[in-house]
Amino acid sequence: HVDWDAAAAEKGGYPSFMAKEIHDQPQAIADTLLGRVDATGRLQLDELKIPEAELRSVDKIVVVACGTAAYAGQVAKYAIEHWCRVPVEVELAHEFRYRDPVVSDRTLVVAISQSGETMDTIMAVRHAREQGAKVLAICNTNGSTIPRESDAVLYTHAGPEIAVASTKAFLAQITACYLLGLFLAQLRGNKFSDEVADVLAQLHEVPGQVRQVLDGLEQVREIARYMADTRSVLFLGRHVGYPVAMEGALKLKELAYIHAEGFAAGELKHGPIALVEPGQPVFVVVPSPRGRDSLHSKVVSNIQEVRARGARTLVIAEQGDTAVEPYADVVIHIPRTSTLLSPLLAVVPLQVFACELATAKGLDVDQPRNLAKSVTVE
Amino acid sequence: HVDWDAAAAEKGGYPSFMAKEIHDQPQAIADTLLGRVDATGRLQLDELKIPEAELRSVDKIVVVACGTAAYAGQVAKYAIEHWCRVPVEVELAHEFRYRDPVVSDRTLVVAISQSGETMDTIMAVRHAREQGAKVLAICNTNGSTIPRESDAVLYTHAGPEIAVASTKAFLAQITACYLLGLFLAQLRGNKFSDEVADVLAQLHEVPGQVRQVLDGLEQVREIARYMADTRSVLFLGRHVGYPVAMEGALKLKELAYIHAEGFAAGELKHGPIALVEPGQPVFVVVPSPRGRDSLHSKVVSNIQEVRARGARTLVIAEQGDTAVEPYADVVIHIPRTSTLLSPLLAVVPLQVFACELATAKGLDVDQPRNLAKSVTVE
Repeated sequence: HVDWDAAAAEKGGYPSFMAKEIHDQPQAIADTLLGRVDATGRLQLDELKIPEAELRSVDKIVVVACGTAAYAGQVAKYAIEHWCRVPVEVELAHEFRYRDPVVSDRTLVVAISQSGETMDTIMAVRHAREQGAKVLAICNTNGSTIPRESDAVLYTHAGPEIAVASTKAFLAQITACYLLGLFLAQLRGNKFSDEVADVLAQLHEVPGQVRQVLDGLEQVREIARYMADTRSVLFLGRHVGYPVAMEGALKLKELAYIHAEGFAAGELKHGPIALVEPGQPVFVVVPSPRGRDSLHSKVVSNIQEVRARGARTLVIAEQGDTAVEPYADVVIHIPRTSTLLSPLLAVVPLQVFACELATAKGLDVDQPRNLAKSVTVE
Repeated sequence: HVDWDAAAAEKGGYPSFMAKEIHDQPQAIADTLLGRVDATGRLQLDELKIPEAELRSVDKIVVVACGTAAYAGQVAKYAIEHWCRVPVEVELAHEFRYRDPVVSDRTLVVAISQSGETMDTIMAVRHAREQGAKVLAICNTNGSTIPRESDAVLYTHAGPEIAVASTKAFLAQITACYLLGLFLAQLRGNKFSDEVADVLAQLHEVPGQVRQVLDGLEQVREIARYMADTRSVLFLGRHVGYPVAMEGALKLKELAYIHAEGFAAGELKHGPIALVEPGQPVFVVVPSPRGRDSLHSKVVSNIQEVRARGARTLVIAEQGDTAVEPYADVVIHIPRTSTLLSPLLAVVPLQVFACELATAKGLDVDQPRNLAKSVTVE
């Protein structure tokens, strides 16, 4: 329960809780990283009732979550598979439960929920444990149901999130997933300690980089205000940019009630490009040209393709990526980081865009219609 | 290459190739089932260069495909996991290739492509084989690249598909996936021969049931014509109804250029319900009440939820399912079949809806803008 009168005083000068929480994100990431490394350089979870030998023998990870938390899980899939060479499946909690998921005592189920009270995810956790799987919770609320019913817990320290649409909890969830991936990689010997330390060092730079992104978004705010009448927006991404595109679309749906849809950019030619007509705004999340070369050039081709059909392209690209400029109506630059960590930066302009556009439409961004903060019923 | 003048004569009295191909579907399914059982009652693939011992030891199946074929893969996931207790992942071919997918020599990769020339899927097949996985192709075109480069082939016998938006090839792909699932279940001893024979008998009834659905769609056609001005349509489903909802939305995007989006119905409360306002058309694919009881009641609740916010609900439900009637503006009945086979029936009204609505808008349903039949470039 939140006392809204008292709460109003707590927006810290921002026009909405959501605006405040977007700006809390550097702190949310920093706090989630805080105190995770012990004196021997070993990563620490908050609670771990699973013997390390069992974690070493895990042969499959299944992430169960709903909504935004499921997109955090999709980012985790790319990172954990790359670092640990363990297959990771991401499953909507409400689908997982009603299927006959193949899980065993060598399956680690990772349940992600801000509140820890998401009913669909609680039911998925129970279902997984009944079948002998171990469950690790990633959760923002101490002592809530999901952590209490899990075998291990990694708390996100995003602080209370009041706005219904999740922002800082999302970045903290992704951060926690990275920590989990690095923990497993270290435990299972997929990475040496110095390799883990390198990634951690990059992660510790991210809060400052998010601040940099936030400080440079006046252009995005202005565009969002001009686009208050837009009826639909498309979002494209590949690899870790794909869940970023999905989350950008979800934010716009939730806040601005606009038909926004995210796609894997490779799907364009398999159907969705039929939607593109002159003037259609399309956000494109571009991977670093310093990552996989062919991936970058494929996304640049996708920008050209939608541009050739008249789309207005709003491109999120790394600083110094000049290859996108000839095809972009707007380029939004984000600082350089490694490919796998880039979602923490790339999603921020999309959050701000959705928040600002909804505000320009005169909508209440903290309490969108039809939605509740925690979905505590099935 | 298609000679369009000659081809015009081949529409068989239908206004478009797509309309004809929708009506060819009973035959496409029947032909795909034809001659698959040998004298000993054993299912046969077209080509199998994988020793049966290796198929018995498969510990993971990864379906790679794009667009509509990927939705066929999602239906396959539910069926094959249920029948064979082997985990099945479905991955967009263009994402699979650029990730570091964890595959091994015990992974069976199933590549689905109507043309067999889908470049993204070809690249995924090559990538999988380089990593030691076995590849089985499900394909509609004899001797095309994907079957030639695969270790096993199961041809769909849908006949040539001319319309760009896939319909009969999709139903034939789902049928082939069922055959593959039954083949593996038999080979691996997950099902007795009589159990396999029971499912096959149900499958053989499906062509007649599809014909029944097609014969009863005058109401859907009329509604589609009335809705020619609709700006957006949502589609909801759970379990095997989820990929059906996704495919229904894709058809409408491809043909009518309408913002149509499919959701797992359980996601509604986690975001998308914010989109629902008075008059918003929402299709809901309802599972059989004779299947999992809780699943049916959950979907009925979802219909109530969107109805309470003013949505116009168009409900696809099994004959005799009276529970949906109080909350449905329109009920479209489909014949009774088993839960896992129901997508073959439930998707048909959605295909007809998209085809008819696009026609009412004066669009060319056979050649939608921006799209090619086979995506032979990456």
